[in-house]
Amino acid sequence: MHIQMTAGHLRAALSSFGRIVERRCTVPILTGVKFSGNRLVGTNIDIEASCTIPTIGQPKGEAVVDYFALSSLAAHIDGAEEVTLSEEKGLATFTFNGSEYRMPSFPANDFPDFGTVKGVRAETGNLGFVAAMRRIRFAISTEEIRYYLNGAAIVNGRDGRPMLVATDGHRLAMMPIDGVPADWFGAIIPIGAVNHLVMRGHEPISIAIDLEQRRARFYLPGHQMSAKLIDGAYPEVNRVIPVDARPVFAVDRAGLLRVLRRLRSFSEGWREGVKLIGTSEGLRLEIAQSERSAVEHISWGGACFCRAVRGRIQCPLSDLSSISPDRRNGYIRDRAPRSLQRLAYRHHVGKRPSSHRPDADARVRRS
Amino acid sequence: MHIQMTAGHLRAALSSFGRIVERRCTVPILTGVKFSGNRLVGTNIDIEASCTIPTIGQPKGEAVVDYFALSSLAAHIDGAEEVTLSEEKGLATFTFNGSEYRMPSFPANDFPDFGTVKGVRAETGNLGFVAAMRRIRFAISTEEIRYYLNGAAIVNGRDGRPMLVATDGHRLAMMPIDGVPADWFGAIIPIGAVNHLVMRGHEPISIAIDLEQRRARFYLPGHQMSAKLIDGAYPEVNRVIPVDARPVFAVDRAGLLRVLRRLRSFSEGWREGVKLIGTSEGLRLEIAQSERSAVEHISWGGACFCRAVRGRIQCPLSDLSSISPDRRNGYIRDRAPRSLQRLAYRHHVGKRPSSHRPDADARVRRS
Repeated sequence: MHIQMTAGHLRAALSSFGRIVERRCTVPILTGVKFSGNRLVGTNIDIEASCTIPTIGQPKGEAVVDYFALSSLAAHIDGAEEVTLSEEKGLATFTFNGSEYRMPSFPANDFPDFGTVKGVRAETGNLGFVAAMRRIRFAISTEEIRYYLNGAAIVNGRDGRPMLVATDGHRLAMMPIDGVPADWFGAIIPIGAVNHLVMRGHEPISIAIDLEQRRARFYLPGHQMSAKLIDGAYPEVNRVIPVDARPVFAVDRAGLLRVLRRLRSFSEGWREGVKLIGTSEGLRLEIAQSERSAVEHISWGGACFCRAVRGRIQCPLSDLSSISPDRRNGYIRDRAPRSLQRLAYRHHVGKRPSSHRPDADARVRRS
Repeated sequence: MHIQMTAGHLRAALSSFGRIVERRCTVPILTGVKFSGNRLVGTNIDIEASCTIPTIGQPKGEAVVDYFALSSLAAHIDGAEEVTLSEEKGLATFTFNGSEYRMPSFPANDFPDFGTVKGVRAETGNLGFVAAMRRIRFAISTEEIRYYLNGAAIVNGRDGRPMLVATDGHRLAMMPIDGVPADWFGAIIPIGAVNHLVMRGHEPISIAIDLEQRRARFYLPGHQMSAKLIDGAYPEVNRVIPVDARPVFAVDRAGLLRVLRRLRSFSEGWREGVKLIGTSEGLRLEIAQSERSAVEHISWGGACFCRAVRGRIQCPLSDLSSISPDRRNGYIRDRAPRSLQRLAYRHHVGKRPSSHRPDADARVRRS
């Protein structure tokens, strides 16, 4: 195998595999990337990414070379420097400007092949698919027991509109996404693929979902990602989403975050509780610990249904932080009362909507 | 006690005590700062810092309030906000803009008093005292056994010029500082005080050193720091500094750092060794590990005395990084062959200069 390119191009190509190629792995070949012509492929069996690399001259042959060794080398070489990677008899040699690095390589034939993805391939460039993933991924479960919650699901909403949904059994986040083909319903995209897409930040040009083979492929500019979909049935989320729920309270998200951060910094431990009390002037936040106590006020304009909600400071803080307004597309207003409805929603996942009493005293629970 | 000020002024004043007030401490009152009029004092017994704070109106009384609680609150409040701190019967109340925080306080009478510092007080504004500390502090020992090495010492150089020196028994760093009063010789400034001065970054306007009481006081703009000097005899460093030592090699510091970082990133472990070999063209760096190997070249212009030096990659890397050119004053050239002499020096601390053979094969040791 022989390939020549600039260190900058190599660095850019290798960045496509972040969070896919794993450093600690029982199968050593999976710590490498396959060079095949001007194409690079990396996989962790469940997810596969590939991209093309601009080369100098014609590349020859194929081989699998350690991803992390190449990445760290490329990070420490001037981007314009020309580098050469060659492989012979299980030894890869990386040379540039008189320097020479040698490392073991793996035979290209042993590299796992992900296979093809059939199914409808839909243009999704302006769908806001990745933007929706970015908003809801905080609610994806990471528990292995309910493995079917370890991803974002495309489900049919109560009104028949498709939506992207994530839940960990305690909280639920959803975003409607119009224009999804009907045969995508039921697909559960695993958290690894969601994180990879969100990290790359680009909307896919097109997506193919093959529900029969349980596979999806995302076509991004200069980059492809394929993932095995989670093989399971997503719970019927419409049962637990309240119909015409009244908001518990509506305050400025940024203001509430600032106050919660101040309370947390003052608190004696991050597991300590905060009490939220609705008054005629606004929301009152209280902490009372063994040695310290604090009272904060946030005024509001609209109606107030909140009597008292208790929870750890960390709970609303992590939720409010994760549903921060989408900076890239900016279509979510910072003053989003909907985000705070989830403080009430939280009590209802797993219960019937009829039991929805947002003004009742209740304890915020967390797994 | 009652004091009113802006959150920004409080934040700036509290920043004076970073690395002095300790979070985990067997004496709880030492986790607090004493408010006494418009003066703040913090101490860890060995080092005391104090500063004045611009107040709104006339402050009254004195009390000791938790440093970290106040710091974290001040960090989360808009700088222009007016804050009030009052204390009564062991309870401190911190209020601003309708918010109220309560925490326990300590009686001001129990706060330890550092005492006065007599001795010559010399103007040192343009002496480069802190700049010299910044250059040599990497070599200060942190071993408790040889406690007298846990600081930077003012000693008499071989030519009679005063110098600031630090050593951990394996490496030695020194900087001449002209204009030091003769009765300061023998003072060992503890590492905590050195770090505090370097972190604040300002040269002291004046310094008083009281060798009888073993105390020093540093007068900085709007800020004072007093420290107990280390009570011990500094070793006779002139014995181990080679006379007219020939440099082992001379290469560009930045270039060598870049290559060493690349080698480290490629290396299988940070404890792995690097071999430095002098050739007619330049310096050759080699690593050869169980699975990986690398060869790098750095060209030089001047004469070369280096045959082969071995050491962990981490050793020259940490040394070269810590003696980075002084960005603030910029009087150290980046191309500093002297810095690299220390690779040779290292073999000679504790030996007689007569045994100085910089071109011999030798192993770089490290505690």
